[in-house]
Amino acid sequence: MSEFRQDATTKDWVIIAPERSKRPQQRPKKKAAEDIPAWDASCPFCPGNEVETAGEVLRIPLSEEATSWDVRVVPNRFAALTLEGDTTRIEEGPFFRKMGGFGVHEVIIDSPSHNTPPALMSYEQIEKVLIAYQERYNALKKNRQIKHITIFKNDGWAAGTSLVHPHSQLVATPIMAPYFHRKFDVALDYFADMGRCLYCDLIAWDMEQGGSRVVAETGKFVVVHPYASHVPYETWIVPKTHCASFGLFPTVHIAELAMVLKDVLFCLHQGLDNPAYNLVIDSTTTDDEDDPYYHWHIRIIPRLSTIAGFEMGSGIYISTMLPEDTASHMRLTAKSCPADVCIAFKDYA
Amino acid sequence: MSEFRQDATTKDWVIIAPERSKRPQQRPKKKAAEDIPAWDASCPFCPGNEVETAGEVLRIPLSEEATSWDVRVVPNRFAALTLEGDTTRIEEGPFFRKMGGFGVHEVIIDSPSHNTPPALMSYEQIEKVLIAYQERYNALKKNRQIKHITIFKNDGWAAGTSLVHPHSQLVATPIMAPYFHRKFDVALDYFADMGRCLYCDLIAWDMEQGGSRVVAETGKFVVVHPYASHVPYETWIVPKTHCASFGLFPTVHIAELAMVLKDVLFCLHQGLDNPAYNLVIDSTTTDDEDDPYYHWHIRIIPRLSTIAGFEMGSGIYISTMLPEDTASHMRLTAKSCPADVCIAFKDYA
Repeated sequence: MSEFRQDATTKDWVIIAPERSKRPQQRPKKKAAEDIPAWDASCPFCPGNEVETAGEVLRIPLSEEATSWDVRVVPNRFAALTLEGDTTRIEEGPFFRKMGGFGVHEVIIDSPSHNTPPALMSYEQIEKVLIAYQERYNALKKNRQIKHITIFKNDGWAAGTSLVHPHSQLVATPIMAPYFHRKFDVALDYFADMGRCLYCDLIAWDMEQGGSRVVAETGKFVVVHPYASHVPYETWIVPKTHCASFGLFPTVHIAELAMVLKDVLFCLHQGLDNPAYNLVIDSTTTDDEDDPYYHWHIRIIPRLSTIAGFEMGSGIYISTMLPEDTASHMRLTAKSCPADVCIAFKDYA
Repeated sequence: MSEFRQDATTKDWVIIAPERSKRPQQRPKKKAAEDIPAWDASCPFCPGNEVETAGEVLRIPLSEEATSWDVRVVPNRFAALTLEGDTTRIEEGPFFRKMGGFGVHEVIIDSPSHNTPPALMSYEQIEKVLIAYQERYNALKKNRQIKHITIFKNDGWAAGTSLVHPHSQLVATPIMAPYFHRKFDVALDYFADMGRCLYCDLIAWDMEQGGSRVVAETGKFVVVHPYASHVPYETWIVPKTHCASFGLFPTVHIAELAMVLKDVLFCLHQGLDNPAYNLVIDSTTTDDEDDPYYHWHIRIIPRLSTIAGFEMGSGIYISTMLPEDTASHMRLTAKSCPADVCIAFKDYA
């Protein structure tokens, strides 16, 4: 028997219909690391091809030698937005409003290795990627025309990537993103009613209730499969201490975030046979970083099936697994991982 | 140079970035009709296999003989919702709300032919499909627990279909669909301000302005590529006369709708080399069919690229083509179509 569940952070409803998992489905298969070369002469992100990604904005570690780097941030060669755009609204009659494509679109090259997915990277490498995310976030927010910064990753064709080499993206926009707008409204209403942050309360409640949807807990983070998961294995990494903006998250705790993120990606890789997925950092607007009502977090969305007409038409997602079951599977997967990964997860499991 | 455009029906913004069309992209190829058999012994929707789809709810034309039909409507074998669910809300603590998976999930088998996509069906066959849609819509709305009915089609793997045989689906829910909720709010605000239907005004304005985004116009319909298209070649079929509900659209005009729909699908098939697409009928809630502010319409969304992390994270779609350019391409495509299709479109072009 299926059920509707309401997402407390958006007020949207999802349908969880385990019967539908029996439906015949072809899942596009991602290439395994061993079937991809470690270096590809034609890849613009591989070391030696740095000239193809001109205008580097960040390199970790700093180095003068062209091919010596662990993480690089470069402008997107096919940028959706650029700093030349003008944000003055232009009214084209009573219904149509437009403005120039102002903004920033960057690519974070996660590693020099062409074939090491984030799930198989070292903790140290993931930490450098997260440091790059945060440095760019904080550099770009200084531009007062930038209102929102979305950092995301598409891993696998089914998740929308067009290049194999592991990379992430950042898009800075002069508008509040509409998806965030909805989450913000719900969080603001909750704050107006309760005087507290919705996410702080939600995470505390989920843990008090025995944590059936909790995958792991570390000193600073909780990993949960949300009550109204939109897709099977949707995973949220939520900081335990209130903080609205990813940009203000204390740098000293980035190493712990790297451990948690790597372990989540590793468990998904092991448990779901290397799935395609999207990762998004949900953060508040740049004008509102100190707000007491929003709470930054990471969402990881495995792409095991295609977003189809019903989702696009109704906005209702149909998931085929209960988050209580997927969280339990993730805890079991963590237990059987090699000794050097999922350390914190093993403690919890 | 890219630009932001605001969708007047949702207030969401999209980015239109023609530069990004140069980005390397693999589009999953759909099988052409000639590479698929006209009948498949293992297909549950093919004539002769009717026992595999028990519980038929509609057949056009009515017939006693098992294998004699043009359109059949059957329960979805992997139904996301069923009439056994209980819609009483259950509060699981202060944050979590659920209810039983009450509703209806049906499959409309568009034709006995295993390999004729809607783009290549006859006008008469499309008309029968639309009659089936409307009959089921009107039958199901009589159940007072049903609040919203979403009719949609996934054509091609990239659009989320799991079976080749041409079919559509209908999901009836006890809740207002969240996507509709947002469109409804915007339309209601407009009505409160102006005392008129947003969609009536929008269509009239678009045509007055020279119709650069208008693909075709018939006696009862306008076909447009919306100002803030979410994806290239997004196409709306909008009735010219105000009507909030697809269920109340006069049956005498269904034949004209069939012509328009077939011609739109044919032009997309010709112009984009048989693309995967979703089709959705956006209709008001079943309790509010006579409302003066909403206006039913059909949205067709070609799936030329994958919905990725940025769209999922921000709610902002990045399209790579201006609707003025895609509409012009559709008009040109209509001109070069064989004499027996796109008749109304040729007049307009």
